[in-house]
Amino acid sequence: MLKQPSAGGDDGSGFTPLVVVELAPDAKEEAVVWLTRKISDSEQSGGAGLSVQQLWSGTAETEKDNPNVFLVGSSRQRLLSGAEDLGLFKEFNDGSMRAFTCANRDNFKDFKGDGDGFLSMAECQYIVKHELDSLRAKSETHIPGYEKAKLYPGKSIIRRMQSKGILVQVFPLHETEELKRLSFTWYKKVKLSLQPLDEIRHYYGEGLALYFGFLEYFTFALVPMALVGVPYYLFDWESYDKYVLFAGFNLVWCTVILEAWKRSSATMAYRWGTLSRKKAFEEPRPGFHGVLGFNPVTGREEPLYPNTKRLLQVYLVSVPFVVLCLYLSLYVMMVYFLTEGWALSLHAAEPTFWTTVLTFVPSVIYAVVIEVMNLIYRYAAEFLTGWENHRLESSYQNHLVLKVLLFNFFNCFASLFYIAFVMQDMVLLRQSLATLLITSQILNQVMEAFLPYWLQRRRNKKMMRRARKRASPPPAEMPLADQVRLEADMSTYLGTFDDYLELFLLFGYVSLFSCVYPLAAVLVVLNNVTEVYSDAFKMCHVFKRPFSEPAANIGVWQLAFEAMSVIAVVTNCALIGMSPQVKSYFPESETQLILWTAAIEHVLLALKLILTFVIPDVPKHIQTKLARLEFESLEALKKKKMLEAPVQ
Amino acid sequence: MLKQPSAGGDDGSGFTPLVVVELAPDAKEEAVVWLTRKISDSEQSGGAGLSVQQLWSGTAETEKDNPNVFLVGSSRQRLLSGAEDLGLFKEFNDGSMRAFTCANRDNFKDFKGDGDGFLSMAECQYIVKHELDSLRAKSETHIPGYEKAKLYPGKSIIRRMQSKGILVQVFPLHETEELKRLSFTWYKKVKLSLQPLDEIRHYYGEGLALYFGFLEYFTFALVPMALVGVPYYLFDWESYDKYVLFAGFNLVWCTVILEAWKRSSATMAYRWGTLSRKKAFEEPRPGFHGVLGFNPVTGREEPLYPNTKRLLQVYLVSVPFVVLCLYLSLYVMMVYFLTEGWALSLHAAEPTFWTTVLTFVPSVIYAVVIEVMNLIYRYAAEFLTGWENHRLESSYQNHLVLKVLLFNFFNCFASLFYIAFVMQDMVLLRQSLATLLITSQILNQVMEAFLPYWLQRRRNKKMMRRARKRASPPPAEMPLADQVRLEADMSTYLGTFDDYLELFLLFGYVSLFSCVYPLAAVLVVLNNVTEVYSDAFKMCHVFKRPFSEPAANIGVWQLAFEAMSVIAVVTNCALIGMSPQVKSYFPESETQLILWTAAIEHVLLALKLILTFVIPDVPKHIQTKLARLEFESLEALKKKKMLEAPVQ
Repeated sequence: MLKQPSAGGDDGSGFTPLVVVELAPDAKEEAVVWLTRKISDSEQSGGAGLSVQQLWSGTAETEKDNPNVFLVGSSRQRLLSGAEDLGLFKEFNDGSMRAFTCANRDNFKDFKGDGDGFLSMAECQYIVKHELDSLRAKSETHIPGYEKAKLYPGKSIIRRMQSKGILVQVFPLHETEELKRLSFTWYKKVKLSLQPLDEIRHYYGEGLALYFGFLEYFTFALVPMALVGVPYYLFDWESYDKYVLFAGFNLVWCTVILEAWKRSSATMAYRWGTLSRKKAFEEPRPGFHGVLGFNPVTGREEPLYPNTKRLLQVYLVSVPFVVLCLYLSLYVMMVYFLTEGWALSLHAAEPTFWTTVLTFVPSVIYAVVIEVMNLIYRYAAEFLTGWENHRLESSYQNHLVLKVLLFNFFNCFASLFYIAFVMQDMVLLRQSLATLLITSQILNQVMEAFLPYWLQRRRNKKMMRRARKRASPPPAEMPLADQVRLEADMSTYLGTFDDYLELFLLFGYVSLFSCVYPLAAVLVVLNNVTEVYSDAFKMCHVFKRPFSEPAANIGVWQLAFEAMSVIAVVTNCALIGMSPQVKSYFPESETQLILWTAAIEHVLLALKLILTFVIPDVPKHIQTKLARLEFESLEALKKKKMLEAPVQ
Repeated sequence: MLKQPSAGGDDGSGFTPLVVVELAPDAKEEAVVWLTRKISDSEQSGGAGLSVQQLWSGTAETEKDNPNVFLVGSSRQRLLSGAEDLGLFKEFNDGSMRAFTCANRDNFKDFKGDGDGFLSMAECQYIVKHELDSLRAKSETHIPGYEKAKLYPGKSIIRRMQSKGILVQVFPLHETEELKRLSFTWYKKVKLSLQPLDEIRHYYGEGLALYFGFLEYFTFALVPMALVGVPYYLFDWESYDKYVLFAGFNLVWCTVILEAWKRSSATMAYRWGTLSRKKAFEEPRPGFHGVLGFNPVTGREEPLYPNTKRLLQVYLVSVPFVVLCLYLSLYVMMVYFLTEGWALSLHAAEPTFWTTVLTFVPSVIYAVVIEVMNLIYRYAAEFLTGWENHRLESSYQNHLVLKVLLFNFFNCFASLFYIAFVMQDMVLLRQSLATLLITSQILNQVMEAFLPYWLQRRRNKKMMRRARKRASPPPAEMPLADQVRLEADMSTYLGTFDDYLELFLLFGYVSLFSCVYPLAAVLVVLNNVTEVYSDAFKMCHVFKRPFSEPAANIGVWQLAFEAMSVIAVVTNCALIGMSPQVKSYFPESETQLILWTAAIEHVLLALKLILTFVIPDVPKHIQTKLARLEFESLEALKKKKMLEAPVQ
């Protein structure tokens, strides 16, 4: 459906730039030459076997442009063998997804002739990135020209150069034509159709496509909640028995949508061939360091790091640190409630203009403190997780997400829990919830879309003006140099982390407290609809193109959402138990009420657990296909043995 | 270490009997001839390719012996190819466990010459059983000579003949020498060492070895509990704060031992090569019926049965039936408590001899009713699970175990829960618990060991007398015919089900209520020690040898024990909350007490969940080995593709 760019070409003639490597303008000549040679050297001699070209070799150096910008491309053959090394899954002739192998390439569906257009540009860029990342020092003791930038066998070169500031950035180029087409089908046309997830995956990779898939799914899943919530809000139903009904609906809904998402994500991941990619074959992440040795699984040479040491780091340093931070966060919250109480009492005793102002001071200070704490904590968490030295990117991400998540959860919800269960003030709870939801949404939209959009437009205009200055008739297509210059200035997309975090917090507001404020679901649906558009826009026009990342599911976020839904069961049961309607059933005994609430809560939790067990995570027909692939691979192992062993 | 029997031999000369097939004495000649031909026919012509011999072809037919007893053996080549078909794991030259293949046989560790003694007799018997079970009808419409015993393509012949009573039994023969050696190391010598699990596995297969491993592990795990429990009992500590301490210890202990067992079971299963056996390749169980078609995974011909139909059967019939039975059980319990209350009040009002007798009547009736209900329910559960027509034996077992387990749990513990939480009578609870534990243990030992032992001795003596009558000088070794006659009369071991069920209930008594009766752990340890001996004895001398069954873990029982440990957390928290010591901390407010109890319980449950997540189920070094095997199999798949595809 989409015309694919010609992926790679023979060296020299028909060089297709895939990835931009930008070194510092004042980088030492020796280091630059050494790196470019490393990149273009053959694999046998320890290089990456790619092709490099300087962007403006002598042409535009008059301006203040950075001369050390290099374009990295690759021959088609190199890309195909890279795809095999990475175990990329492509569609086979029989419609199934299989790991690509060069030897068997003619049996893959879209492989025609010499493989022109077989790999998407995103895949090519992913392969190039992987090859660059796996450039590791062997005998070098330091980066040439930089005595202090020490190297040891197995250390990632790119990583060291980046940490020393010699390498500014590495990013993949956009495909202008393709991007135009994608952005049209994605968000420009007014449409009633779904997002083009397969095309998003084609252009940005599975990780991002799964995020947009989840965003879409989440929005649709919220629609029933929103539809039920509107009449509750309009007709003020919450003052009747139906309030309990709403909380009950909430419970069932949370469990069901999460289970259903697992299945639909597995279906997508199978279609994209990432479901059966094995974790054990993941290469170590670039930041991973250790003593060079042999991987016990693959037998290949790579740095090794003792697992026990990492476990000690996690449990003796990271866990206590996180607990301390959580305690601090709670402490700050308590101080806030105390000072607010004090300010309110002062205002009540002798109301003047200044006491009115004073009542707002604690909230403002608290909001600022929370933001500052979030920021500091985020840096600390990143530092700690990096220091834990995880071998796999996925494991690094999991640990980072868990750390940040826990803290954000406390910061966002601790005050709501306090209001709900300690102060038991439902009116204040509703107010706080509404304020939090609405302000955070407005803030998000501004920070995420409008601000970057405005900055980008200014930058674009400047660039156009400059281009026009040089060549009087503005060219129909932007020249490559200008495209690189433009994209190098764009902000870097830091991954789906913050986007998921936002969804997670929204999910929390809806699932935990929406029975108190039924309009929450409506607000979240509205937010999500605009979020799809603003996220799509920012991916296409605000940020640099990110490297595609294969993913089979939303990873640790699934766990996070499930944990939230368990907390939602507990919270909703408690809210139901505290409602005056339910209390009126037990007029004489509060003990009875609490015991019943606890009993029902336990039954619901048990039911939830059973549901999770009973519903298979992967739909049956996909399980069968996976089992078939595995069966074939085992049969092949037998055959291989048969060919090796002399048959008697 | 153990001398292995010569497994198989060429047809005719050196026939080693492996499995006995006993047909009804009055079975029609046609059917007998047809079955034996089926067994000995080559695989190409739809047979099993095994060798058959009639036990006493014309010799001992004068007596009342059944003439239709056949010995099934097999050629060595047939056994080896059967081992390959079944994917049996054997030790490779490099010490790892790999699926056996004939082509690669010389690379397996114990394969010498033509493979004599490579497969243990248990493995040979397992292979023969599998081949017999997979004898399926093709064009036959009924069993020859039995118009009413209908057959259709894909129906298991053995199964149909068994259900029509034409086939009496199929069982593997004991190895007298080996058995003597095993029973000596296992239970005959007074010893301080552990059970010879590897040898048990060698003789009886992994399923049984895992049971004995679990029994041993469970006993050791209970020792700390018992050690803590004794002083509690002796010094009457339970009336002090330490009662709460004991319940807390209980909590932690349950979680830790179950997690640790998973790891140690994985280690054993890896050593035995069953950890990486894949489920998807399991053959359908003999009782499985359906329309003959092609398995979507393996592409082989086998009966197929729609999954949706089975799901409907489970959810629309089995689940409601189980729920109804549970309700009935609860109803019976309530009736029991009511009548007992009524009898007691009658006795209290006007105590005579007859009212004293009357107070015992409800208990006796209740005990009898429970036994009857258990019996009827067991039959119903087996029928229902068979009717659900599960494709895999494991799936059948899981459904059966869950059904029986739930009902037994209710029957055993419902009255204890009622006493503990509704009547809140701790003295009665302790009494009931002690009575239940002691009587059930005594009953078990009698029913499981002494009774069968006594019956078996009587049978043995009779047999010996008969043998002596025939041959005046008693032979040093029993002749084969006598061995077969003896073993055919032995009871059939119905699997580990009842043994696990017993352990499960004991675990329940200890984990749920032992803080009320600290001696429970001591009693269970004593019981388990004798259980090891009595179970070992009954396996060696009371029952027919069971077919070995590969198993990687204790299956659904792991889940059952974990569920019990979750219930234990809830129960212990509630018991702690109800204790007078804790109550005295909250003298004015019962509500506060309950809220605190519930809060602590939630924290403990969360901790338990996190522990389950954090502790990997399979130890790291075994994970690595498994990943390595998988990696190699994928590499082999690539190579296979390379050999198939024309390299360009």
